[in-house]
This record gives sequence, C-alpha cells and structure tokens, in this order.
Amino acid sequence: MITGTFLDEISHDIPDANWGRDEWTRDFRAMADTGIDTVILIRAGYRDIATFDSKVLRREHPHLIVADDQVGMFLDLAERHGMTFYFGTYDSGRYWHSGQHDREADLNIAFTEEFISRYGHCKAFGGWYISHEINSFDEGVMKVYERLAGHLKSLRDLPILISPYIRGVKQFGAEQAIGLSEHEREWREVFARIRGHVDIVAFQDGHVDYAVLPDYLAVNAALAREHGIACWSNIESFDRDMPIKFPPIGWRKMRYKMQAAMRAGVDKLITFEFSHFMSPNSIYPAAHTLHRRYMEFKRAADTAV
Amino acid sequence: MITGTFLDEISHDIPDANWGRDEWTRDFRAMADTGIDTVILIRAGYRDIATFDSKVLRREHPHLIVADDQVGMFLDLAERHGMTFYFGTYDSGRYWHSGQHDREADLNIAFTEEFISRYGHCKAFGGWYISHEINSFDEGVMKVYERLAGHLKSLRDLPILISPYIRGVKQFGAEQAIGLSEHEREWREVFARIRGHVDIVAFQDGHVDYAVLPDYLAVNAALAREHGIACWSNIESFDRDMPIKFPPIGWRKMRYKMQAAMRAGVDKLITFEFSHFMSPNSIYPAAHTLHRRYMEFKRAADTAV
Amino acid sequence: MITGTFLDEISHDIPDANWGRDEWTRDFRAMADTGIDTVILIRAGYRDIATFDSKVLRREHPHLIVADDQVGMFLDLAERHGMTFYFGTYDSGRYWHSGQHDREADLNIAFTEEFISRYGHCKAFGGWYISHEINSFDEGVMKVYERLAGHLKSLRDLPILISPYIRGVKQFGAEQAIGLSEHEREWREVFARIRGHVDIVAFQDGHVDYAVLPDYLAVNAALAREHGIACWSNIESFDRDMPIKFPPIGWRKMRYKMQAAMRAGVDKLITFEFSHFMSPNSIYPAAHTLHRRYMEFKRAADTAV
Repeated sequence: MITGTFLDEISHDIPDANWGRDEWTRDFRAMADTGIDTVILIRAGYRDIATFDSKVLRREHPHLIVADDQVGMFLDLAERHGMTFYFGTYDSGRYWHSGQHDREADLNIAFTEEFISRYGHCKAFGGWYISHEINSFDEGVMKVYERLAGHLKSLRDLPILISPYIRGVKQFGAEQAIGLSEHEREWREVFARIRGHVDIVAFQDGHVDYAVLPDYLAVNAALAREHGIACWSNIESFDRDMPIKFPPIGWRKMRYKMQAAMRAGVDKLITFEFSHFMSPNSIYPAAHTLHRRYMEFKRAADTAV
Repeated sequence: MITGTFLDEISHDIPDANWGRDEWTRDFRAMADTGIDTVILIRAGYRDIATFDSKVLRREHPHLIVADDQVGMFLDLAERHGMTFYFGTYDSGRYWHSGQHDREADLNIAFTEEFISRYGHCKAFGGWYISHEINSFDEGVMKVYERLAGHLKSLRDLPILISPYIRGVKQFGAEQAIGLSEHEREWREVFARIRGHVDIVAFQDGHVDYAVLPDYLAVNAALAREHGIACWSNIESFDRDMPIKFPPIGWRKMRYKMQAAMRAGVDKLITFEFSHFMSPNSIYPAAHTLHRRYMEFKRAADTAV
Repeated sequence: MITGTFLDEISHDIPDANWGRDEWTRDFRAMADTGIDTVILIRAGYRDIATFDSKVLRREHPHLIVADDQVGMFLDLAERHGMTFYFGTYDSGRYWHSGQHDREADLNIAFTEEFISRYGHCKAFGGWYISHEINSFDEGVMKVYERLAGHLKSLRDLPILISPYIRGVKQFGAEQAIGLSEHEREWREVFARIRGHVDIVAFQDGHVDYAVLPDYLAVNAALAREHGIACWSNIESFDRDMPIKFPPIGWRKMRYKMQAAMRAGVDKLITFEFSHFMSPNSIYPAAHTLHRRYMEFKRAADTAV
C-alpha cells in the first residue's frame, strides 16, 4: 500500500492550493491516517520561486518569490506524525537544460548547505531527493548526480532518492517514445553510473500504456536489484489521459497501477501526490472520492491479511 | 423539460468522479427528484477499460482495467427509481476508425450477448444505445448499425438510440465544418438507411453557433418525422466555448438550447450529462448552481402549466 | 490593499459560475467584508450574449442569449453596500478586430444610451469602463476611445476607466512580445491621445515575468502621472503560468504583485476578479484559501498601520 507522498509546493503545471499552516496541519493528519510515513518535497525552489527565504536563491533571483517558511512547517508537521522528510533540491529551470550542469550543481551545493545550516537539526529530516528528472541516459545529469550525491552524503549521510520517468508514448507520442528494450538498455547504463551515489529509484508510472506497464515495472525492479538499489514505484494519482492537465486519476486506473507495482515486487509505493489528487482535503472533489475508494481497498486488503 | 441523461462512466475527455455505490445512490435520487426517467450508459467499455468484468473484453484486453460492477449497480439503482436503462455498446477506439467495421460489430455482438446473459433479467433494462457517433453519412458505420441493430433486436426487442453530432464549426472550424444544407443532405441519406434499424435519434446540440442552432434542430426534427424515427435533443450541459475542456455550461446558454429544442418540437430532452455537469452532487461546484437555475426554471414552467 | 474588482459575467475564457441572486447577494457581502468599494462590470455584452435584455443588442443578434437582469441586480447589490459600479461597454468580438471601428463605436453609443435610460437613475452607478483592451498604440481603437469617451461624458460625466495589458512574453512569447522601452514608447503615444478622454488606466499585471514587473509598474505609473491620468493596478488573481487556463493564482505570486504595485505608488489596487478567483464563495476551492491568505496579510498590514 502507499506509504509515501511527494509534497508538491512548487510546480510549473499543478495549480497552487494556497494552503497555510491550518490547511497543511489538517492534511498531514489525513496523510498519517492514510498510512503515509514518508514525505518528499518535490523541490525546495524552482526558478524564482522558493519554499523558504533562501539567501542563496536571492543571490540568483533578487526578487525571489516566497511567502512563508514552508520547509520549516513541513519538517515540524512531519516530526509530529513520526514521518521521514526528504528534502528536494532546487531546480533552476534552465542551467541543466542548457549545458551548464556545473552551475546547476554549484547552486545546489550552496543551497543544500544553507538548508542544513537552517534545518539540519530537525528530527524529521531523513533523506535527500534530487529533483532533476531524466527519462534516459544523460551524461550531463549523471555529473550533477555524482557531484550532488557526494556533497549531500558529506553534509548528512542519508538515503538519496530520484524519481525518473519513462520516455513513453503518453508524453512523447509514438514517434519520440522509446520501447521496452531501448528503455532497458538506457537504464542499465544509468543504473551502472548511479550505483553508490543514488540509493532509491522511484519511477513515475504514468507515461506508458496500461497494457505494457507491468513489463516496464518488471524491468525497472530487475535493474534496481541488479545494481543493489532500492526500487520504489511512484504511483501517479493524477490522470494523464484527460484534456484537463491534470485531474485526479480514475480509481480503476490507480488500482490497476498499484496492483501491477505490487506484483513487480517493488520495495515501497509512493505517490505524486496526496494533497492535490487523493486527499480528503484536496481542492479537487474527485480526490475526496479517490481517497474513499483507496481506503475501502486498503481496509479490504488489511482484513484479508 | 429534461427527462433523460447519459451516464458517463468511461470517457476519453471527462475526468472520473471516482464515485462508488454511496455516491451513485445519492445521485440517482437527485436525478429522480430532477425529473429524470431515462438513463443511458454512454458506453459499457472503451478500449481497455470496462464497466463490468467482461470475459469478451478480457479476450481482447487481457489486462482489462475494471473495478466494480457498475452496470449491475446502475441497473439496480435505475430499477429502484422506476427509470429505464439504455445499455451503451463497446467502443474499441480503433477498429471502426481503421476500416475494420466488421470486427467492431463482431466484438459487440459477443459483448451484448454477454450483457444479456448477465443482466438480461434486470427490470430496468429498456433500451439499446449504439455508442458509435457519426456526424455525416459513413458507409462503414451504416453497416455496423445494420448488423448491430438486427442482433440487438433479436436479443431483446427494445428501442435503439443513437446520438450523433453535427459537423459544426465548434469542433471542425470554419474550413472543415459543413453548412445546413449539406447537413440536411447527408442526414437524409443516413435516415433513409437507419429507418427500421434505429428508433430514436438524439442529436448533440453543442457543435454549431447558437444563432443557427434552431435551424439545425428544425431540420433534424423534420428528417426524423419524415422517416418515422423519434427525435430527441441531447442538450449538452457542458460548455464547449471555454479553454477548460469541459466545465458545466453557463445557464443562459443551456436555457437557450432547451427553449430552441422545445420550439422545434422534439419528442424528449436528454442531456450529456447530469452527474458531472448539472447535479447538486457534481465534482464541479458550477454544476450545483446550474442545477439550482434549472430547478427554478422548471418550477416556474410547471407553475405556468 | 485591493479595493476594487471586476465582475466577470461574460467571458470567452472564464467558465460561468451560474450564480443567481442568492449567490451574488452572498458574494457582494463577502466583497464588502474584504474591503471592496468598487465593482467594474467587465462587459455588459459580448457577441450574442448579454447581461440584460437589450433592444439594441437584439437588433444586432435577434436570438440574443440572456437570462436574468444582471445589470439591475449588480447595481442594486452595489448600492446596498455603498459601492461604486462601473458599467462595462459591449464588445462585438468582431467589428473592432476587422477595421470596422466606427460600427463598434456606433453600437456602443446606442447601447450606452439604452443603459442610461434603463439604469441611469441607480445610485451606485459611478463610472464607465471601456472594455476594448489594447496592448500598444492602435489608431482604430484610439478613435473608438475618443468617440465613446465624448459620448459617455455627455450621457453622464463620470470617470472613464480602461484596463490595458502589456504585450508581454506570457501571452505573446519571446518573439512577438515587446520590451520595456518599446512598451514605454508605445504607451507614451497612447497616453498623449487618451488624456482628457480617459481618467483612469489600470494595467493588467500578469503578462510579464515577475522579475521585470516592478519596472513596468514604474513606467506605467510615471506615464500616467505625466499625463494627469490616475494609475490603478489590476492585480490578476488568476494564474497565467499553469496548463489549466485559469486557476486561482498562488498566494506567493499574488502577494509579490501587490507589493510591487504598492511600491510603484499606484493610486488603487483592483483585481480581475474576486468572485471566481479570490472569493470564499468561488467555484474554485483554491480561491477560498487564497482569500484566507489575503485576509491574514491584510489584517497584519492593518495592524502594522
């Protein structure tokens, strides 16, 4: 069952729920009641928007757009519920897309130092999430991973998580998507490079047709085992199949993807993400009902065990 | 007034509300209170998604995505409220778009046999809905209609409904849309072919400009009468004019379209569809208010009579 | 703080909330509680849709789509709360885009006469809003402004407001957008032409990157002062950065834009618009929370003063 969720506080494609401390307090309680023990900040900053008033990011963007100290709040709420908090790195939205991978790494080295000096003492802090997502082998990003992983481990020796995606038809179309064997070849190369740096890989599960998802899950789990890396599945709780980008996913599809991941023997199920797409407090009413369906399913499974 | 609605349980463009039995029970009660006596399942299966665990569809898609028995639930709820349930056929999403019309018909012949063997005894079952929509004459689909209609009537001699659309500017743009006289010519040909097979035609009313909708409604009603076919109007309760595809329609437009249909003398008003777009229980709050506006209008009309 | 809002009753891109008198009564109370003293009808008619059953518009569109008398209702509700109501002109959606500027002006001359004869006695009526938006100098629209302004002032000598937009990257892309100096050049020309006709200019604030918004606000305020025209800022409360067009804006961004406008010394903050995007009664739940964040900010600022 799902025991982890991203916290999507800064996004280029998911609208802001405009929650303050009251709303987040209520939602962390709902997460705990749903069985969530792990929360992963999707990114602590994106372009000129930040989740706390960072000096490092203000040097980069003097007009930095920031309101409350969300990182402090998340760490506090996670601690109250005995959850593990993964800190998501900064995404410049540009350097690592334009060949300036060292600049992306440098910025994050300074930014994560600032994070540790401000929040390093918080008890809930228990992992790093490198937010730069890839879908196939990328030499530049490998170097970002290597430089960052070394630095993060030196700051605090905690598990490092990434959550890549599949170069699948739902985002790239039939022309530009890659098939299963090319996916396996690309990712064997990636896994060989990241072993020893990255501890957990949680593939997003929404980019390929439902019919072939089990095959991809099997390949991903096998590659991870082969390289001694933990394999989680990121069960997307939003729907990629609709013209509205994005509503909560249909329960039938969510259940199918969860069952497929469990059959593949992944180590843990997490979701992107609880608060928008499957929370009883979501701004989307279809998330409230998705939560009800999920809880019915979970209770039935708990009883069966 | 509106006395019928589609049940949109599987769609490529309307997000799932994730309702279970409790939510559907509440919404059927709301439908009954609103004056609905007819519910039409938009399609019982679409590609690899199904509304019940069909053996026929599992042969086609071994990984079939299905959760609850929604067809059984709908038949039960319809019966409790004395409603007539129309069963919507399976849409492969491919065969009838790629010249394999016989395969589309064959699949549905087996699928509707399975439906009858599982649900044929249900009291609410009172009509067939052939879900393959056309906007102009299409020889391949005519053959699907003919083969299916003969088969459906032999399984159970009940009214057969289709709900075509107009090849209008709102979907096709000025270049590819057809005008009123071409529409009339195309549909005279269709009506001549489907008479004796199809009993009811319910044109969707959202594809043309409001100014010319009355002309199309008049032509459709006249063609139906000419061929001894019942003419319903499918008053779309979603808005095709907005960048969000699709929100509940503005009440002004809905009222205008209902009045135009009534003036054209159609036999019955149905809508696509109550639960998302004009229900007090909808996931869209603007549907709750659309329902209030509709009920005020209905009460005023009932009083006037 | 924000003391004015548009009333967006007719739009090509914002879905209808389907509010009747009860819902609007409740929302005007919320506006008053939020500190709103000015309401601006975005347009009284658009193409074939109208906010009251206008004889002038029925000549143009015999099938005119109209339900309730919304203008009468808004004037009544504004009066009850001591608010000033600005009447927004008709937008044909075509004449002024196709060189027929005189026809657009003629139609509006007749339409505003009809408005005055029907609603001229209403106490809340306190301003004109010319709804034709421009982003740079446009000779044809200048003539519309000149002809309309003269006529409106002769009907009732009240402040005339326009709310232009910036030809910025968020709508036009990097290729077609114009930079700050070209914006200044274009708008110096506009201001020179409209002085003596238009009394208030309220630029929309959502078309440029956050980093450069303060520069545009400073230029706009300086140009307005230079020409003796009042400068308001139209703080957009919807988010232009998301694939969904449009959700309520993230609070961080809203706060940033408000603070930038206050620093630029504008005369008044208004928003497009309260009821959809920052009302506790909105059809969008993220607007309820945006309202909470705004009220917390407002109370803190009120206390600080």
